[in-house]
Amino acid sequence: MTVTLEEISVARRVIEGHVLRTPMLPAPNLSALTGAEIHVKYENLQVTNSFKDRGAFVKLASLSEAERKRGIIAMSAGNHAQSVAYHAARLKIPVTIVMPANTPFVKVRATQAHGAKVLLEGETLSDAQARAEQIAEAADLTWVHPYDDVVIIAGQGTIALEMLEEVPDLDVLVAPIGGGGLIAGTAIAARGVKRAIEVIGVESRLYPSMWNALRKGNLPLGGPTLAEGIAVKSVGALTLPIVRELVADVLLVDEPHLERAVNAYLCIEKVIAEGAGAAGLAAVMAEPARFRGKKVGLILSGGNIDPRVLASIMVRELERESRIVALRLTVYDRPGVLGEVATRLGELGANILEVEHRRLFLDVPAKGAKLDVSLEVRDRAHAEAIMRALARDGYKVEMIATPAVE
Amino acid sequence: MTVTLEEISVARRVIEGHVLRTPMLPAPNLSALTGAEIHVKYENLQVTNSFKDRGAFVKLASLSEAERKRGIIAMSAGNHAQSVAYHAARLKIPVTIVMPANTPFVKVRATQAHGAKVLLEGETLSDAQARAEQIAEAADLTWVHPYDDVVIIAGQGTIALEMLEEVPDLDVLVAPIGGGGLIAGTAIAARGVKRAIEVIGVESRLYPSMWNALRKGNLPLGGPTLAEGIAVKSVGALTLPIVRELVADVLLVDEPHLERAVNAYLCIEKVIAEGAGAAGLAAVMAEPARFRGKKVGLILSGGNIDPRVLASIMVRELERESRIVALRLTVYDRPGVLGEVATRLGELGANILEVEHRRLFLDVPAKGAKLDVSLEVRDRAHAEAIMRALARDGYKVEMIATPAVE
Repeated sequence: MTVTLEEISVARRVIEGHVLRTPMLPAPNLSALTGAEIHVKYENLQVTNSFKDRGAFVKLASLSEAERKRGIIAMSAGNHAQSVAYHAARLKIPVTIVMPANTPFVKVRATQAHGAKVLLEGETLSDAQARAEQIAEAADLTWVHPYDDVVIIAGQGTIALEMLEEVPDLDVLVAPIGGGGLIAGTAIAARGVKRAIEVIGVESRLYPSMWNALRKGNLPLGGPTLAEGIAVKSVGALTLPIVRELVADVLLVDEPHLERAVNAYLCIEKVIAEGAGAAGLAAVMAEPARFRGKKVGLILSGGNIDPRVLASIMVRELERESRIVALRLTVYDRPGVLGEVATRLGELGANILEVEHRRLFLDVPAKGAKLDVSLEVRDRAHAEAIMRALARDGYKVEMIATPAVE
Repeated sequence: MTVTLEEISVARRVIEGHVLRTPMLPAPNLSALTGAEIHVKYENLQVTNSFKDRGAFVKLASLSEAERKRGIIAMSAGNHAQSVAYHAARLKIPVTIVMPANTPFVKVRATQAHGAKVLLEGETLSDAQARAEQIAEAADLTWVHPYDDVVIIAGQGTIALEMLEEVPDLDVLVAPIGGGGLIAGTAIAARGVKRAIEVIGVESRLYPSMWNALRKGNLPLGGPTLAEGIAVKSVGALTLPIVRELVADVLLVDEPHLERAVNAYLCIEKVIAEGAGAAGLAAVMAEPARFRGKKVGLILSGGNIDPRVLASIMVRELERESRIVALRLTVYDRPGVLGEVATRLGELGANILEVEHRRLFLDVPAKGAKLDVSLEVRDRAHAEAIMRALARDGYKVEMIATPAVE
């Protein structure tokens, strides 16, 4: 094994006072939902809102005085960039972060805010990687790899030590897999402390790179996943053999389950998980039988999700629960009709969110119009009662927003 | 004093194993934002997502065998209902919750899910209260008041003991005020342990009932506040004298600050705070000079916020940051024009969220149309660059969504 339990224990002492010991709490409501006894490790509460703070700090603390002076470089558009920039600033190490040219400005700005020099280079992650390697060589900067580095792996492994200290009798520990740094460190630490524990990794079904590597499989890689933090096309040379030896299983989760898991963290636990951070819960929700009755530790690995994506997930869930519905009414196009309909909807307990008058459809009478109304209602039964009442009033009414299928 | 530090210490032992010891964590990003050294007590992570679990459990545990058998009753449309129902179910005490008739169905359902009998009675909270009192008397049920009860106050006070154990050198402790149960318990506990600590209460400016009571003031009460959990019109007979004696100050926060504080918890700390839960942070953000350089403990008292309200807060913040803007273009109404505009916007790096064609304005030429486009852009400067580029292309363009003023 390239990384030992002893090295992870040393890393644990190194991060003390520098990286938060995040809470690990029982989640009885998620337990009721899934049938497993769920405990959650809230790494979204780290200062840069992901577990990457751990490996980054241990790596930076391991550098010699000369290396610190020359500076460091990393390539990342995500959580690794934040963590490296944040800890470099605290340790006064000059830091360059290379990001692909199309990186959202908010991420560039967040990284710059820590005082990092950000270079936008290359169209893709691999272009950016190639450019970053050139720059590192030319300027003699120390490379900080996001996962394929024994020191980083040891840093990430500290999570599992904390989890097992809180709940020593965990049966299963579930962690997301991107390049494999978190799962590798977790597996070494957890199985070092407790040989019988089952360590399970989770990948997005759109990026099953570890799954492929373990099975010499050929599942396709690519596509827009909610879990962009683990959308990695090639796993680490160091992490793969560790996963092969110590990880019981790699599960693949699809997008609807990732979305439901993000939403469950939001609505039930009142915390924000990014897609990758919710992957463990998504796996338990997708395959409850596999976890039923077991004591399961989930790593909520990060909370950095685009607010617009999060808002959209929340609204989609309301639509799915039929708490927001859209109805189309065919009405006579005369003054007062909107007032009548709106008043009637109010009497029926529906809250009008949006109204649109449509006159250009050929299937309405020349003097008619269609009225599309988005309504907030109590539930599906309430929506149906409203439709029946409007029909009794003589309106032609149909539901036009079909809640997404589970 | 009607409640003593000793009683709160006893309550602390009573809740052990029944109510979560929630995390209290430093929040360096909020500290950077406000200039105070902020520590947050995450009561939103309680099982029913608010601190009300504490008082409710201590109260229920204090009942005699006979009282438990006869059952309990409470009136609440909010967090108190959840907590009483949850702990009554765990202790197998029959429980009736009275809610006003207009209570959102999702809250009714959540309370019923704990096995409570829910009665929808009365149009207003005070109607519901009167009905609940009649029912309690008729059925000989034990009344569980949300705040004006020495046992409840002792239970809420356990929060402050935990906070000062974690961070003994807090200078200031800030808690929201509704009826005053939380602030009263907090003040007795905190100042009992550490006389010099400053305890500050926060009310919504729309419901300054404690502020009025302390000053014999006459500020108006009422209106739709984001902090409906502390929208209370009359403070407790027990809580008022405690607040008068032990609380240094009551601050009033307005709606924009409540909204910004909810958003800060969301974006910076990756957790969900309801309006009342964010009131403490709102006060620090509104009056930073008052807290600058001090070690401040904030009670994030609850996370139960309507998902639709939360989604709307998030989108409004994006608009405020000019990451979502709406432009109105005057164009010729001919085939292909939408394609041209959309292509050009893509080239300029804007992501189109919504498009609306308007032909009915009198201030466009007969052959013209207005095109309203909602765009996701990087920031205000990006939005302005896009407008200049479209103007150079010959389009008449104006911004129609004015970001809300701070």
